Amino acid sequence: MKIGVIGSGNAGQTLGSALVKQGHEVKLGTRSIPKLDEWLQQINDDRASAGSFQDAAKHGDIIINATAGAGALEALHAAGSANLQGKILIDVSLPLDFSEGALRLFVVNTDSLGEQIQRAFPDVKVVKTLNTVASALMVNPRSLADGQHDLFISGNDAAARNEVIGYLKEWFGWESIIDLGDITSARSTEMLFALLVRVHMSLGHSNFNFKVVR
Amino acid sequence: MKIGVIGSGNAGQTLGSALVKQGHEVKLGTRSIPKLDEWLQQINDDRASAGSFQDAAKHGDIIINATAGAGALEALHAAGSANLQGKILIDVSLPLDFSEGALRLFVVNTDSLGEQIQRAFPDVKVVKTLNTVASALMVNPRSLADGQHDLFISGNDAAARNEVIGYLKEWFGWESIIDLGDITSARSTEMLFALLVRVHMSLGHSNFNFKVVR
Repeated sequence: MKIGVIGSGNAGQTLGSALVKQGHEVKLGTRSIPKLDEWLQQINDDRASAGSFQDAAKHGDIIINATAGAGALEALHAAGSANLQGKILIDVSLPLDFSEGALRLFVVNTDSLGEQIQRAFPDVKVVKTLNTVASALMVNPRSLADGQHDLFISGNDAAARNEVIGYLKEWFGWESIIDLGDITSARSTEMLFALLVRVHMSLGHSNFNFKVVR
Repeated sequence: MKIGVIGSGNAGQTLGSALVKQGHEVKLGTRSIPKLDEWLQQINDDRASAGSFQDAAKHGDIIINATAGAGALEALHAAGSANLQGKILIDVSLPLDFSEGALRLFVVNTDSLGEQIQRAFPDVKVVKTLNTVASALMVNPRSLADGQHDLFISGNDAAARNEVIGYLKEWFGWESIIDLGDITSARSTEMLFALLVRVHMSLGHSNFNFKVVR
């Protein structure tokens, strides 16, 4: 499958590498293509490539938004709505603002970054997921407790949610994905980040995830 | 032990009943004492009593704030800072506002209800906990998966947090309590409520809790 990844930081590179290893043709979209030379050399696979945000959006049958949240809308506008139209956009970004020292979410409570993206690109099928775990766990859930922990998914299009649930299982081995319904539920998983930070501080590492015991 | 519970709704009555059964002398503070006639008849135990917010605060060596969040500060002011001074206040309340139809938190992100209470009553040792589970689970964690799931605790006074951790184990049988540190971490557990609501909607019941798989 052709996959375009918008954003070339830690999450984008980790997702990109895992997807190439699964046999997919992955183009990472970035503001600075030379920044990805090292990634391309490390991965050393013709199915990996780098380009602009627009190149990545054109390339992908499916798009992943792995930008830092503060730059998400700008990057997606640069990618171009015509290049995103009708496609599934897997949104893993978080609305984090560290500008005042302590962490705050720049959108919260009555709105979410997932919803902002869906409103800005109404013809795109935004599916929020993978935003509640560290990058290493996103692509390798079985490395922790044999995968016995949960992921959440939000999005207005039920068929798109189900399609992405299938990809998460096939690509990375996620076993338990809790469908939270429409994109307004992205508020709840974005707001979980506040607890992730505090649990991280308490445990001293990020190799953990939540399980809904029921 | 003498325990004063501020708030006589579902959480207050459930906590009160469980504590009386553990042998404690519990006074539920309420705006409307006759409302508690039924609770007193059901429990049928001399160690249970009802009174004003002030009566409950005077009675308790330890205080539990189980009010609906919107009325928390008003109820605690009615209880009287002199009656609370120097005591541990276990705060289980949530800053929920349903006034505009959909749920929103009336304080979030850069502040929390736990912090508001601590600022309003600087001589009280506010310890936020039990605010991430349904009332029935608060007092009976072993009813779900033999207690193999987590509770969180926040508060500025480390000795008070440890004392409350001891009570949670002794009173209700909580086995795993994650210490998140100072009262600013109450933001993170109050914000978890957004996810609790969505998971509740997805599962169709509230008999669940989170476990931090690590």
